[in-house]
Amino acid sequence: MEKDLRPVIGITMGDPAGNGPEISVKALTRPETYEKTRPVIVGDARIIKKAAELLNREDIRINAVDDLDKAVFRCGTIDVFHMDLIKDPSSFRTCAVSVEGGNAAFQCVRKVIELALSGKVDATCTNALNKEAMNLALETYKGRYSDGHTHFDGNTEIYAAYTCTKRYTMMLAYGDLRVVHVSTHCSLREACDRVKKDRVLDVIKIAYEAVRDLGIERPRIAVAGLNPHSGENGLFGREEIDEIIPAVREASGMGMDVTGPVPPDSVFPEAAGGLYDIVVAMYHDQGHIPVKTLGFEFDRESGRLMSLKGVNVTLGLPIIRTSVDHGTGFPIAWKGISSDESLVNAIDYAVRLYNGRRTRG
Amino acid sequence: MEKDLRPVIGITMGDPAGNGPEISVKALTRPETYEKTRPVIVGDARIIKKAAELLNREDIRINAVDDLDKAVFRCGTIDVFHMDLIKDPSSFRTCAVSVEGGNAAFQCVRKVIELALSGKVDATCTNALNKEAMNLALETYKGRYSDGHTHFDGNTEIYAAYTCTKRYTMMLAYGDLRVVHVSTHCSLREACDRVKKDRVLDVIKIAYEAVRDLGIERPRIAVAGLNPHSGENGLFGREEIDEIIPAVREASGMGMDVTGPVPPDSVFPEAAGGLYDIVVAMYHDQGHIPVKTLGFEFDRESGRLMSLKGVNVTLGLPIIRTSVDHGTGFPIAWKGISSDESLVNAIDYAVRLYNGRRTRG
Repeated sequence: MEKDLRPVIGITMGDPAGNGPEISVKALTRPETYEKTRPVIVGDARIIKKAAELLNREDIRINAVDDLDKAVFRCGTIDVFHMDLIKDPSSFRTCAVSVEGGNAAFQCVRKVIELALSGKVDATCTNALNKEAMNLALETYKGRYSDGHTHFDGNTEIYAAYTCTKRYTMMLAYGDLRVVHVSTHCSLREACDRVKKDRVLDVIKIAYEAVRDLGIERPRIAVAGLNPHSGENGLFGREEIDEIIPAVREASGMGMDVTGPVPPDSVFPEAAGGLYDIVVAMYHDQGHIPVKTLGFEFDRESGRLMSLKGVNVTLGLPIIRTSVDHGTGFPIAWKGISSDESLVNAIDYAVRLYNGRRTRG
Repeated sequence: MEKDLRPVIGITMGDPAGNGPEISVKALTRPETYEKTRPVIVGDARIIKKAAELLNREDIRINAVDDLDKAVFRCGTIDVFHMDLIKDPSSFRTCAVSVEGGNAAFQCVRKVIELALSGKVDATCTNALNKEAMNLALETYKGRYSDGHTHFDGNTEIYAAYTCTKRYTMMLAYGDLRVVHVSTHCSLREACDRVKKDRVLDVIKIAYEAVRDLGIERPRIAVAGLNPHSGENGLFGREEIDEIIPAVREASGMGMDVTGPVPPDSVFPEAAGGLYDIVVAMYHDQGHIPVKTLGFEFDRESGRLMSLKGVNVTLGLPIIRTSVDHGTGFPIAWKGISSDESLVNAIDYAVRLYNGRRTRG
């Protein structure tokens, strides 16, 4: 029998009160999902069954397994690595913060990391969890299920803790627009301070490896400036001259195809149009604004942002992790209207990263 | 005879070596342009004729006038307020920086301002000039045609000088996404310093007036935060707490519909989706990145950005001025391929501002 080359992707259910269950069912009833992957949801099979019913997909078989060898990985069946997470799924309150939901979300992430570290899954994708609910659960159970942790900022920090990773970087992607950040969650003043040659060079290297992992042999990397018009030769701001240009030169000297500093208001439309494979952004909003402006769609009726096509990838971990680029969407969850596009794209990125790494050995 | 309520819009030709002539001809051969406006190009009629020939529109009559009473303002004719700017149009070198082109561009702007100040035109639109060419011309003629000025940064600064305006603000627009800036051409560090309550409040007021001028009775204004996630209650950055929130409160107290600080990576997709009429951006790139990412399109074949739908409006002047939101496009000028969408949108904005101000008295 021929070896199945499709990677096994573990997908966390996310907070069961949110959009994770329904968008997972949507993504895992698409035949094309099975062409390149063997997907399995890590969560509570009864919640997934409820989501399938919500979507009028009673034709789909929910295959609850406690061992991935029992998964079938065929469209028409949804394999769930089942854990008893929700006491009574029929009365579980959706669309709201709860200790039970937060705990379930946390357990799914911990389990998928364990499965990846032990080689049972080839890559992982996360659905959204609610930060408040999870931390309520961690507080309530006082480390009973969390090896002593009582607080996490989100999925990413759980991955960092349970894979013992200190240096990691967020990559945001919308289609072929990819962005890595020199800094993320710090003030804009501190972000200016953090634009240092060594860090910029590090992030260029991380960007290079990430794009190579995506199967692009010779990545075209753009480095954004920090100041408007990249400072116009020092006229307003010297970070380009003192820090960014030296980093770009050094990276070029190492043989990388690096352009920059590129004026911040040109580099993103250029990259979105295909001129670069990845952009090194100098601060959180420089990268987040273009990706979210392109990838998010606002729903006039509900008055809410609907995520469409953003993917969040954590670079620097020993395992592959991609994520939807939106929250739990409580206000519109369990109505069957949440879009699975971000999850579909996250799965696609996980596959590309897996295949890229395998090819490169 | 009924009074013609369509405003007379003076449109500068821009640098004749660039895309201004051809996109002006494109815009002024669209029948819909004449439904709401009486457009007139301010420039050299022979250059406009050459552009019409380039576009195979020999059917169009070029009506060179020295007095706007002689303009016909009918589709099929292009009225040009004619000045002898180019010595020999047939041998004039296009797509390149030249003193003659820079001088011509400058003269057009000076003239259209004069026409607006004297009430001969109701509003003005500018095509792109080349900064280098214009300043070369100003240097060459040493103030002979420029009242002693030997340097301008661009169209906007010429308007400020010749209308004696000190306080003006740039509004960028892409469709219904409108942005005004608390600061523009300064370093990002200085931009942080410039986030002061009084200035933020001033810009909120300017935004309010601008949107009212566009005919929106009760503008919904969003004020962006400065720091990522608007600082998460002071966790990273205090400008929201110390400066932005007090400004928003004071504006609300004056009866304006103001929301903020809104996280910078949410406010632009929300505004683009219709939740707000205008966004107050804290710095140049915060506003420019989303507008240009949405409004610019990259052409894979030529490897260049093609502007599509951006409009630049100068607020605070005694006359109406809108502008295309792109440069002279030398590399692709005089090939007939430059898009007139930005100019069409600039004309449309000029009309809306004129009608709004007239209605409000």
